[in-house]
Amino acid sequence: MDSLYLYLTVGAGAAALVVAFLKIIWINRQEPGGDRQREIGKFIRQGAMAFLVREYKVLIIFLVCVTTLLAVLNRGSGKLAAASFVVGAAFSALAGLIGMRAATAANHRTAHAAGRGLSYALRVAFNGGSVTGLSVVGLGILGLTGLFIVYRTVFGTSADVLQETVIPILSGYSLGASSVALFARVGGGIFTKAADVGADLVGKVEAGIPEDDPRNPATIADNVGDNVGDVAGLGSDLCESYVAAVIGAMVLGAATRTPALVSLPLVLAGFGVLVSIVGTLFVRTREGGNPQAALNLGTMGAAVVMILLSYPIVRFLAPRSFSHGSATYGSDGIFYSLAAGLVGGILIGVFAEYYTSNRRKPTKRIAKASSTGAATNIITGVEVGMQSTALPVILLVALILLSHLFAGLYGISIAALGMLATTGIQLAVDAYGPIADNAGGIAEMTRMEHSVREITDRLDSVGNTTAAIGKGFAIGSAALTALALFVAFKETVGLETIDVTSPTVITGIIFGGMLPYLFSSLIIGAVGHSAFDMIGEVRRQFLEIPGLLEGKADPDYVKCVDIATRSAIRSMIVPGILAILVPPVVGLLGGVEMLGGVLVGTTISGVMLALFMGNSGGAWDNAKKHIEEGYFGGKGSLAHKAAVIGDTVGDPFKDTAGPSMDIIIKLMSVVSLVIAPLLIR
Amino acid sequence: MDSLYLYLTVGAGAAALVVAFLKIIWINRQEPGGDRQREIGKFIRQGAMAFLVREYKVLIIFLVCVTTLLAVLNRGSGKLAAASFVVGAAFSALAGLIGMRAATAANHRTAHAAGRGLSYALRVAFNGGSVTGLSVVGLGILGLTGLFIVYRTVFGTSADVLQETVIPILSGYSLGASSVALFARVGGGIFTKAADVGADLVGKVEAGIPEDDPRNPATIADNVGDNVGDVAGLGSDLCESYVAAVIGAMVLGAATRTPALVSLPLVLAGFGVLVSIVGTLFVRTREGGNPQAALNLGTMGAAVVMILLSYPIVRFLAPRSFSHGSATYGSDGIFYSLAAGLVGGILIGVFAEYYTSNRRKPTKRIAKASSTGAATNIITGVEVGMQSTALPVILLVALILLSHLFAGLYGISIAALGMLATTGIQLAVDAYGPIADNAGGIAEMTRMEHSVREITDRLDSVGNTTAAIGKGFAIGSAALTALALFVAFKETVGLETIDVTSPTVITGIIFGGMLPYLFSSLIIGAVGHSAFDMIGEVRRQFLEIPGLLEGKADPDYVKCVDIATRSAIRSMIVPGILAILVPPVVGLLGGVEMLGGVLVGTTISGVMLALFMGNSGGAWDNAKKHIEEGYFGGKGSLAHKAAVIGDTVGDPFKDTAGPSMDIIIKLMSVVSLVIAPLLIR
Repeated sequence: MDSLYLYLTVGAGAAALVVAFLKIIWINRQEPGGDRQREIGKFIRQGAMAFLVREYKVLIIFLVCVTTLLAVLNRGSGKLAAASFVVGAAFSALAGLIGMRAATAANHRTAHAAGRGLSYALRVAFNGGSVTGLSVVGLGILGLTGLFIVYRTVFGTSADVLQETVIPILSGYSLGASSVALFARVGGGIFTKAADVGADLVGKVEAGIPEDDPRNPATIADNVGDNVGDVAGLGSDLCESYVAAVIGAMVLGAATRTPALVSLPLVLAGFGVLVSIVGTLFVRTREGGNPQAALNLGTMGAAVVMILLSYPIVRFLAPRSFSHGSATYGSDGIFYSLAAGLVGGILIGVFAEYYTSNRRKPTKRIAKASSTGAATNIITGVEVGMQSTALPVILLVALILLSHLFAGLYGISIAALGMLATTGIQLAVDAYGPIADNAGGIAEMTRMEHSVREITDRLDSVGNTTAAIGKGFAIGSAALTALALFVAFKETVGLETIDVTSPTVITGIIFGGMLPYLFSSLIIGAVGHSAFDMIGEVRRQFLEIPGLLEGKADPDYVKCVDIATRSAIRSMIVPGILAILVPPVVGLLGGVEMLGGVLVGTTISGVMLALFMGNSGGAWDNAKKHIEEGYFGGKGSLAHKAAVIGDTVGDPFKDTAGPSMDIIIKLMSVVSLVIAPLLIR
Repeated sequence: MDSLYLYLTVGAGAAALVVAFLKIIWINRQEPGGDRQREIGKFIRQGAMAFLVREYKVLIIFLVCVTTLLAVLNRGSGKLAAASFVVGAAFSALAGLIGMRAATAANHRTAHAAGRGLSYALRVAFNGGSVTGLSVVGLGILGLTGLFIVYRTVFGTSADVLQETVIPILSGYSLGASSVALFARVGGGIFTKAADVGADLVGKVEAGIPEDDPRNPATIADNVGDNVGDVAGLGSDLCESYVAAVIGAMVLGAATRTPALVSLPLVLAGFGVLVSIVGTLFVRTREGGNPQAALNLGTMGAAVVMILLSYPIVRFLAPRSFSHGSATYGSDGIFYSLAAGLVGGILIGVFAEYYTSNRRKPTKRIAKASSTGAATNIITGVEVGMQSTALPVILLVALILLSHLFAGLYGISIAALGMLATTGIQLAVDAYGPIADNAGGIAEMTRMEHSVREITDRLDSVGNTTAAIGKGFAIGSAALTALALFVAFKETVGLETIDVTSPTVITGIIFGGMLPYLFSSLIIGAVGHSAFDMIGEVRRQFLEIPGLLEGKADPDYVKCVDIATRSAIRSMIVPGILAILVPPVVGLLGGVEMLGGVLVGTTISGVMLALFMGNSGGAWDNAKKHIEEGYFGGKGSLAHKAAVIGDTVGDPFKDTAGPSMDIIIKLMSVVSLVIAPLLIR
């Protein structure tokens, strides 16, 4: 019976890819703009591709090592886990690549389209973002469901077989996606902020030329960064969240000994893909309309439809009641958990928006504090960021307790899935932001009319708000998914309890709690070093290329892209390998209980730092924008200078270290789950 | 048999108080300096006393409420727990008061003594600090041992009686000390940083007058702050650590059903008091000698003596072997745990010194990053601070595992005690720092000869290094003590395990992990608001008092002290009440398992933030000092301006929010332990 639904899920994934493909064709048919726009667009695309190629080369070496290890160490089924791993990694990398190619095709076309009006520009930019959104969820669900169907056919569909053979093999898929995500997120994040900070500090501060000025050698690298960090990096990141949430729910479904609950997460995710496809078609506005309303209609509409229509699916597919351990739950509970997850995700996003929007009190306070200098700007930003952790955490706590009440541990994993059910459209909105941003940059660099820049700015600012909500979804779902994976790990290694009062567990928690700080330190340090290299190069070009500052000569954009690429790739290796090595090392030396403790500690610290860094960074950014709108002295005032310092500090917080936390907590959980069979022999 | 040792322990406490008293007499006999020095000294003392009086008034209201609650809610033995609570609070408050009076008597005498030479000035300042150190440990151990003897005599000495009646009553003492410590640390910390930031931002940055200039109206408040924050606040803080560590060990000793192991922590602590007394007598140097060597001789000598002589004590008092649960340990294990704790504490201090000393690479990197502006200074400081968490955490993990291996859970609590065994001399060195600092301020304000300031600066800089090590002890012991108290809590409420995979526990951990961020946010915010009030007042005085900036008129010092006092007292209430209310509220609504989770989460996040904020703050401070020594452009350069911003950001980190974490994690554990009987009915 549920085979049919699984095939339909495969169909939903395929449909997403077809729609993405049609959107690519549509984008390529739009006018690419004049020679200069095309040329800048080409520079950006080449830079982004050069980065991805270099990144994927490093990834391949890494993948070969992990694949070999998996195949050798996990005897028997290990070879298939390795195969899942390769497929997961390949699909995740492919999703990033497709999304980035579409984004770099859409950016200069959006700039050109902005010459014809807001409505048309929104369509081009949003279609570009939709390609990322749809190809991520399409490939993610296609690969996962496809492999599941194959393994189920080979091994069987009984509860035992699913739990002991199929799911452990399948979790290799999640590991593959996570590994790619880690490198893409960390590497892309370092690239984009190194270029951003480098371009700003020398260009804006030292040379006194505006942002996106074509005389600034780092300006192309800055725009490349938006694509590799905020499109490819984000795409792999959410692909990973998405896959991990589905796998987590499948593992806990298997723990209920009810095969239907193993398939259900896949079917729900597949249904979410269809809802997302429809949602992207609704994001339109007429000339003079409000693009924010259009984006809201698409995302909120998708959420509402998802909630309404998932009820019959759950009723139809899930058994009337199921048990986990000694407790029994009804299928309605599954639906409530899903709905709670979706609503909870939106609320966490609303909290993030409150703390970071330049229309709200916290950010205005930071702007005000800037008038007494950079020190008070930073102190107030830290204060706001720390305070902003409270509400989301309380909500997460309520969500965990509620969904557990509704449907046990399975309910918690379903809540995580609910948060991510409409990833397709969420991600489309997220990826649309950097395209609009790039379009603005291209308009500036090619000195297009002022009205063009106004339209792209408007598109960009709309994306920011929705992106804040998207970040809430990302961290909230990461926390729930990590929790579900952690429980799955415990079930797989066969522990009855993991007792925090045991010294092994508590030391694991303490050690794990430290890791996110160490990772953040490595990542923030990497941004610093890379930005430093970039600053040196930009200064060199200003000094050595005659006539550059007067606009009589072109800077060497390629060199800057190259430096950021090399620096970012080099710096992503240590944190990447560390995240993947810690679970096996701790598991083998300290035992599974200590490893369990490490996962808990890393999750707690990681969630806290992600919220703190993400929100303080966002608030600093918007406090600067608030001042630029004319408050507290406006642009060029002392308050503005202080706010620029805060914004620069916040850059690696919110765009590199913060989002990396989401991945690290899930990656470590997935690694633990995959190596679990190795630890219990 | 062990009664004799308990009386000897009381004797050790009394001896410490006698020596402290003699030192006070000696200090008061030294020449108080000229009229101007005496006058400034009087201003500082009056300001400090005014603050303490106001603080203690608020405290009394709070204490009356808690006492009533304890007596009413914990029926039966609750009245005695309330009595212990009152004694603990009174003794802790008294220790802070005595220490502060001695410090404010010693500061201007040190300034005057510096006119006669380094050796004499060191003696005056160090004797001032010793009064704090000795009265804290003297009162702490005297009260605790005295009450123990009384309760033991009343109720009996069997293992059952100790575990079920005596220890729960006695832990009220620790709660009293903790409550006072929280308000003293948070209130004092807010006062000192508000005054510091206010004095710096208007005086140094706006008016361009040097630090400690008598024309600056906030300069007296700044010096008052050193006394109320770094002497009285620190004194209550360490008194609390000390008492909590002893109580924690006693609870776990009771859990082994071996009465001798209940008394042993008291006796070891009493012995540590004696060693500390002797240690203070060794801190001397001849003219031209090295004050650092003198302090090292005192602290390290005391540590070595403590380790060597505790062996026979343990051998003599502890049984050959004892069991906890199913495991059996030898008495040698207790000694090893104690020694490991002491060595571990020193190592954590050494790590802190590495990350914050201006002679080491991390701080030099921050100084270098200052030359590209405030943003890179802040980013690098955050990076260093986050990285600095790794080594201490790894060491803590090793220490917990080792001491558990040596002597079970009891071993962990003994390791915490080992770290704090020589608190008397450690604290003497810590409290000596602000006295030397104050002396320098008085020398500057009264325009004494340059050579005087040179000597006080030298004394001050020596104290900084040793204080860094002291901070390591404080946070390391707080972590271990919180852990011991947490285990004690679990034993008291009678839980077999606290399973992290249960949703109740994990949500408790997540919620608890958020609390230190919320507290830090409240505390950092309070410093910001209070500094803002201070800035307004200083600006007003510069504007409204004619001839002030020309040095023809005196500023209104009292008004500034008053503003800082009012602001600090007001702001300490919310975080204080929150810390105390969370455990009962969670325990009653969510149950003991969730409360256990909250304690774990708070401890992890609290330790991490304490290390991060303490070390980044210290590193920013010393990066500025490094630049002031002439590197990267020296004083007045752009790098220096950037470093001043970093230092200002670091001030509330390292001196207010960071140290408050130590208390909050212990306070919440102690509150939970005290209310435990209420939760299991």
